[in-house]
Amino acid sequence: MKRIAVLGSTGSIGLSTLDVARRLRDRCRVVGLAARSQWEVLRDQVSEFKPTRVALSDASAVERLRKAVDGAGVRLLGGPEGVVGVATADDADVVLSAITGYAGLEPGLAALRAGKTLALANKESLVTAGPLMLEAARAGNAAILPVDSEHSAIFQALASGKREEVRKVVITASGGPFRKSTLKEMEEAGPDQALRHPTWNMGPKITIDSATMMNKALEIIEARWLFGLEPDQIEVLVHPQSIVHSLVEFRDGSVIAQLGVPDMRVPIQYALTWPERAEADGRRLDLAKVGSLTFEAPDLERFPAIALGFRVVREGGTAGAVLNAANEVAVEAFLARKLKFTRIAAVVGEVLDARPPIPAPTLDDIRAADAWARAEALRRISHPQGSPIHA
Amino acid sequence: MKRIAVLGSTGSIGLSTLDVARRLRDRCRVVGLAARSQWEVLRDQVSEFKPTRVALSDASAVERLRKAVDGAGVRLLGGPEGVVGVATADDADVVLSAITGYAGLEPGLAALRAGKTLALANKESLVTAGPLMLEAARAGNAAILPVDSEHSAIFQALASGKREEVRKVVITASGGPFRKSTLKEMEEAGPDQALRHPTWNMGPKITIDSATMMNKALEIIEARWLFGLEPDQIEVLVHPQSIVHSLVEFRDGSVIAQLGVPDMRVPIQYALTWPERAEADGRRLDLAKVGSLTFEAPDLERFPAIALGFRVVREGGTAGAVLNAANEVAVEAFLARKLKFTRIAAVVGEVLDARPPIPAPTLDDIRAADAWARAEALRRISHPQGSPIHA
Repeated sequence: MKRIAVLGSTGSIGLSTLDVARRLRDRCRVVGLAARSQWEVLRDQVSEFKPTRVALSDASAVERLRKAVDGAGVRLLGGPEGVVGVATADDADVVLSAITGYAGLEPGLAALRAGKTLALANKESLVTAGPLMLEAARAGNAAILPVDSEHSAIFQALASGKREEVRKVVITASGGPFRKSTLKEMEEAGPDQALRHPTWNMGPKITIDSATMMNKALEIIEARWLFGLEPDQIEVLVHPQSIVHSLVEFRDGSVIAQLGVPDMRVPIQYALTWPERAEADGRRLDLAKVGSLTFEAPDLERFPAIALGFRVVREGGTAGAVLNAANEVAVEAFLARKLKFTRIAAVVGEVLDARPPIPAPTLDDIRAADAWARAEALRRISHPQGSPIHA
Repeated sequence: MKRIAVLGSTGSIGLSTLDVARRLRDRCRVVGLAARSQWEVLRDQVSEFKPTRVALSDASAVERLRKAVDGAGVRLLGGPEGVVGVATADDADVVLSAITGYAGLEPGLAALRAGKTLALANKESLVTAGPLMLEAARAGNAAILPVDSEHSAIFQALASGKREEVRKVVITASGGPFRKSTLKEMEEAGPDQALRHPTWNMGPKITIDSATMMNKALEIIEARWLFGLEPDQIEVLVHPQSIVHSLVEFRDGSVIAQLGVPDMRVPIQYALTWPERAEADGRRLDLAKVGSLTFEAPDLERFPAIALGFRVVREGGTAGAVLNAANEVAVEAFLARKLKFTRIAAVVGEVLDARPPIPAPTLDDIRAADAWARAEALRRISHPQGSPIHA
């Protein structure tokens, strides 16, 4: 029986994780839950899964939750340190972190240091602080298991050889809603168009990242740390059907791929049951029905975010934190209709240009780089190179 | 350093194997070679690889070889027992058996009993005598490694999970030269059309098997023994590009596939270097260039051979030996223009119908079934149900 803590349990990945846990009652027990502020959703989750510890990082929501679950024998924690409390609780074996954004970093580090297996859906912690995450994993003798479909695919494919036998990994990308759009159409696209993802049903931030392909930049950086790869060992391949979730080419020319219907519950379940595979009742892949899988090289001109990912891998240091922070601010501005779609990647590039990265950063350096990049991005969004807003 | 004996060294797979061995001189040494009768090709191989033992199953060719390699310090053996001598030589670690047809069975059994790792390209030995092969492997504590691209793909994909976690395997098929032909066109097809394989460059027997899709029948039966599968755990999927060499679906819905350019040297090398992967300089898979991979269900009406494969897996016993023997005779008759293309599978089916299989057969039962099926097939080809020859 694996005892699981779910951080970000009220979000898209969190809900899918509880869906998996519900089906795997004979293998998994949910012992911890953490969310930001949605106490009503959390209340229902508490009453269904009966965890021992629950946290809301928005401490003001804790009192409401306390009244709603009174007497349920669960320990309620508030604030970011409450989330860390859930991530490090003695009774948890696996911590699935589905917190969105930079806020996922510290609970992830704490879970690893406490020796928990970290099933990582939060991309930002490896992107901003890859070396610190690896150090924490070493210190806690803990494993980091990828949860997003691409890295889970790579992780599964890697089982077919040794690490030193890997020639390259190929991260697939759906290409998002603008795969076939012109640059002009992309310039004019609003949130409604950008949120229309062709294959995956996900939260808004990651859906916009998928439209800009900044999600591939994040995944390139993640792959670099998760699998110890050099920049030239990573490739991005557009595959609109999202059936081949990623591939690994070994040095003998053999390529191993993981495929499946686009359903996040598959990689989530694998991370929870690893190194075993449990029965699942989801839709099954029927390639004869799918008929055709297509592949194309990404267009780096329309999707400059991809090149930013490779740039960050080469530059290292605080570059990942800067890319991530600038992107969060830019996506938020775009969703609030304060920034043009094509300016998202442009702003991120400008913020990266504005200051050289600090090598071998501490957590404080990363925090400072994150804060600086947010301010710098905001400044550029408000006053883009002297031109009016919305330029 | 792995010491390798190559049985069938002058055939298509044998030559590719030596190609691989030539490149992997730092990992592999060729210590044994065996062929049927091509002593001149063998002479050149002896002078290049300097094996310690060499056999020609056609004993009459041995004397010519002896004169040609005089003084080379190599032991020359003749006849089928000579081939067994090469397969069981003390100095061989891995025996790659690329002998075509039923003749591959006894050297393979002997190699396994002698504890050699058997890299098996000869399909017929598992098809005709699967349980005996497994018994020999157990007795010699030896491994059977698949060499053909489909089973090598399955073998590589299986590394990503446990055997009891496998839901099914999907064997891909190019569909051969008649994939889009009508039944009428297939009825009229001669050897020239049937030998025109779209993606793989192979010997004539296997190329015809690929045109009838009898090769998939053989592969279904092989997969059953190699991987311990039930009939309903095996599927055939037509994939004309021959890039996805086969797939494994695990019970969690995850599908692992092995892909690569169609080049037999990849699975051959993997079998020789397993469990490691060595560098290879062959063409690399470029999916963006390939563009599209297509899949379709096989047409069981135009390719009744596939159903025969499943039938043999269900019936067991001597059914595999009967299918294989009848098919060898029918293919030979087709190549000699004595049988219509569509009659190949029909004859095999009729021979299977003519006698119930003998359960749990001994090697003698299998030999007898093989001989009977050959005679029965020949009889049906010469006198097909009272109608004239060529019917």
